[in-house]
Amino acid sequence: MTFGDPPGNLWAAMRDVWIAGADMTRVGRLAEPLQDLMAVAAHAALRSADRERPDSIVVATMNPEEFLGDGNFASNVATHMGFANVPVIRVETATSSGAAAFYAGFAQIASGLAHTVLVVGGEKMTHLPTPKVSELIGRSLDPYERSYGTTMPAFAALVTRALMARHGVGERELAQVAVKNHANGARNPLAHFREEITLEMVLGSRMVADPLRLYHCCPISDGAAAIVLTAERATVRVAGIGQGTDALALRHRESLTSFRATQAAASAAFAMAGFGPERIDVAEIHDAFTPFELISLEDVGLFPPGKSAAATLDGETSLEGRLPINPSGGLKARGHPLAATGLAQIVECVWQLTGCVPRRQVQCSVALAQSIGGPGTNNWVTILESRPGMRSHAAPISGHPRSKPASRTPLQLIEHLPASRCPECRLVAAPPTRWCPRHPVEMTPTSVMGGGEVVSFTTLLSPPAGFRSPLHIALVDLVGGARLVCHGDKTQGLRIGSWVAIEAVGNVYYFSHLGT
Amino acid sequence: MTFGDPPGNLWAAMRDVWIAGADMTRVGRLAEPLQDLMAVAAHAALRSADRERPDSIVVATMNPEEFLGDGNFASNVATHMGFANVPVIRVETATSSGAAAFYAGFAQIASGLAHTVLVVGGEKMTHLPTPKVSELIGRSLDPYERSYGTTMPAFAALVTRALMARHGVGERELAQVAVKNHANGARNPLAHFREEITLEMVLGSRMVADPLRLYHCCPISDGAAAIVLTAERATVRVAGIGQGTDALALRHRESLTSFRATQAAASAAFAMAGFGPERIDVAEIHDAFTPFELISLEDVGLFPPGKSAAATLDGETSLEGRLPINPSGGLKARGHPLAATGLAQIVECVWQLTGCVPRRQVQCSVALAQSIGGPGTNNWVTILESRPGMRSHAAPISGHPRSKPASRTPLQLIEHLPASRCPECRLVAAPPTRWCPRHPVEMTPTSVMGGGEVVSFTTLLSPPAGFRSPLHIALVDLVGGARLVCHGDKTQGLRIGSWVAIEAVGNVYYFSHLGT
Repeated sequence: MTFGDPPGNLWAAMRDVWIAGADMTRVGRLAEPLQDLMAVAAHAALRSADRERPDSIVVATMNPEEFLGDGNFASNVATHMGFANVPVIRVETATSSGAAAFYAGFAQIASGLAHTVLVVGGEKMTHLPTPKVSELIGRSLDPYERSYGTTMPAFAALVTRALMARHGVGERELAQVAVKNHANGARNPLAHFREEITLEMVLGSRMVADPLRLYHCCPISDGAAAIVLTAERATVRVAGIGQGTDALALRHRESLTSFRATQAAASAAFAMAGFGPERIDVAEIHDAFTPFELISLEDVGLFPPGKSAAATLDGETSLEGRLPINPSGGLKARGHPLAATGLAQIVECVWQLTGCVPRRQVQCSVALAQSIGGPGTNNWVTILESRPGMRSHAAPISGHPRSKPASRTPLQLIEHLPASRCPECRLVAAPPTRWCPRHPVEMTPTSVMGGGEVVSFTTLLSPPAGFRSPLHIALVDLVGGARLVCHGDKTQGLRIGSWVAIEAVGNVYYFSHLGT
Repeated sequence: MTFGDPPGNLWAAMRDVWIAGADMTRVGRLAEPLQDLMAVAAHAALRSADRERPDSIVVATMNPEEFLGDGNFASNVATHMGFANVPVIRVETATSSGAAAFYAGFAQIASGLAHTVLVVGGEKMTHLPTPKVSELIGRSLDPYERSYGTTMPAFAALVTRALMARHGVGERELAQVAVKNHANGARNPLAHFREEITLEMVLGSRMVADPLRLYHCCPISDGAAAIVLTAERATVRVAGIGQGTDALALRHRESLTSFRATQAAASAAFAMAGFGPERIDVAEIHDAFTPFELISLEDVGLFPPGKSAAATLDGETSLEGRLPINPSGGLKARGHPLAATGLAQIVECVWQLTGCVPRRQVQCSVALAQSIGGPGTNNWVTILESRPGMRSHAAPISGHPRSKPASRTPLQLIEHLPASRCPECRLVAAPPTRWCPRHPVEMTPTSVMGGGEVVSFTTLLSPPAGFRSPLHIALVDLVGGARLVCHGDKTQGLRIGSWVAIEAVGNVYYFSHLGT
């Protein structure tokens, strides 16, 4: 059973869930830290929703532990964006984490646990070498199949070769998906790739995992996207949402050329919506590899089995065609910042439904987003419907990210330490933070005197790698108001209330005891 | 605003959520893989709930990527336990992930999205060196404070020293928490530590992070716990649930000696329950470090500010006291398998409320569980209430885990390959799996002939580290029915439908082409 088949008539009394705002950053090789990208997307989505603060936040990231070395990421990013006191959870289902987080937020509103939920997803990978990124993404696969060196491209290639044998899908059909999606990406100012390509370029690109070539595969991208969900009526309603799953191992699947997980998700989403695929005007489809778009179009029910390839070659899925697919450029051209992707698809659907994407606008009132998690093991279908006559809050501004992160001044060996001050609550932070740790207000640069009073301290006898034992760490309240963490040579004689001088050596603060 | 303060009267129409079953594994240094531990806990909880299959699963693990090297863990563990086709998401909020997953499951039932939800959490860490585990757990802290070598024990020590200065909490009070919780753990057959300890042993144990000693700290543990939530009336009802958050950096907190996140969570949970702390008969509290139990008792409202230490020394929180705290032994003695912990606390509460923990039974009808995420940034309070007169499904059997995982026979260089067969759907898996990948049925050992037909294949030109390029990978349907992934020397001349012979060299399958 999936969510499409609840026992009894559970949905009858479920609260409607609406989309009050949506926004995203540019996708590509971005220099900003992930926390900044997610904060920019989140604040832009809140502005577009005309909301200052959500009741609850759901964060999607696939693997910040290994991409960035940061854990507890829900708290990390909520604090960074100024929402340290808003309840936050992180949801993860591999490459569909953004869609899964959207669903978790949907459940909070539908149950009445929350009234306004911010869902924000992002990933940053381009700072790592490609083989490392491939290895980390490949851990989504069955561990045993992975032990053979199977990566995501290898998985996709195994599926593709079977697809090409069974349905007569040829090289031109596979290549046309890329050509079409690059043509759409060229009209999207936020896309990773904004150049059109030709069939010949796809067919001449280097082989990655036979029969898949470079231009059949989506890029490695950074980016973030955010949605504001609400229980109040707005322009766009979530009409249906469905999840489907499948066995982790490819070798245990019933079919190689369709994904049971997408079929189950679509069936559940249409059951909740109360209508069928014939109502869909535009769709964002998970084309991490071009054959996945062809497979997904049939799995979702937008084309009959075996018909999506010819329809693609005939232009039915182009921007001007009968059923435009991936107007954003899809994963192939807009890019695939993992946990941002499921939300970026929904952002595009919201923008299409509210008529604010001029060069790629599709006439539509119902849109569908489909997301694939890992090797097709945890897939989602989300159906959105516009309600004409409602005022639209969703108005994207091109040229994201809209503001640059504050520059990070290196600390110097001086008695004044760089800091930042909240213009509202007066909290002082050293080193400076961009947003106030207590609420989402941009901090003002300032400096503080390098002296203060010990609030607490410890001597750590089993310090982590790279530190000598014993390691002396103190918390100090500076005269200027900031609370600092710092190192010292010794804590002997130190007490809470002791006065210490602080100096910065490079990036590191040190205290020295001045007596109590 | 927290969930304690919804706009309008949102909760009025919220569906009641009940607990139909609960169970957990032993906690300690365990040899079984995490997937086995979680499967054992999940199937035991389903049996205690008299349910064969949930509508939906929520998985809690804190960091399987780095503890185990596995991603896409929701699909991984659901497939392993035989629920490959049940919708599953993973929820993570650092050390409170179990409580957060419980909340996500609660939202699915309360909204009507699902009728029966399995929530299962687990962690496995003891196979890694302690400094590595500490480093990984320490990534929950503010990155800047971490750059000073601050670990979780250092964080706790900073808090403890401030606590000892402000409320007159002495060494004996801190030590008594450990003495009490070890005394309780000695009565819990599933606890990590089952020996009583004395005040002198605590005060004489080695210093870890001054002023915290070894016996003030919980152990590193493996284990798993599971709960079955349902929309049907059962013995135990979820009366209230609340989440609270706080700034990641200790230096940005308003107080060092109380956790805002716990206070907010408690306030929200009691608001939903519609009663106050005076109704609580027993509580499981997050005593990762003994001072946290004293702080949390006051933050939750079970003791007035400044009163918990003396009350502990006076025996008020012992098993025979006025308000028994941590009858399971708490994190200190039962153990702290990270993402399992929030659920293990709830399992203990369910067992207490249904009267099935003979040597540590407390007379109770309302129980509270409190969980801390990371450095007190993402905390949860859950309140459970028993409804007398309902039949109890929750009946734990001591001596978990109840069944041992199937032994893993190493593959040999033979023409018959070890495999397993599902007695119901006849699926054959090679190498053998314990549960059927398609449904939760235990597989029967068998063997299959080492020859079959190529279903798909690829040549990977950018293989992961440790593999030579080009890497040939094929999917083969064996004569005996299993589908295999295997390596080969070349794919030249190979086609879908080609016949290949399979041999196992050590753990690895290789194909050789027999012609088409």
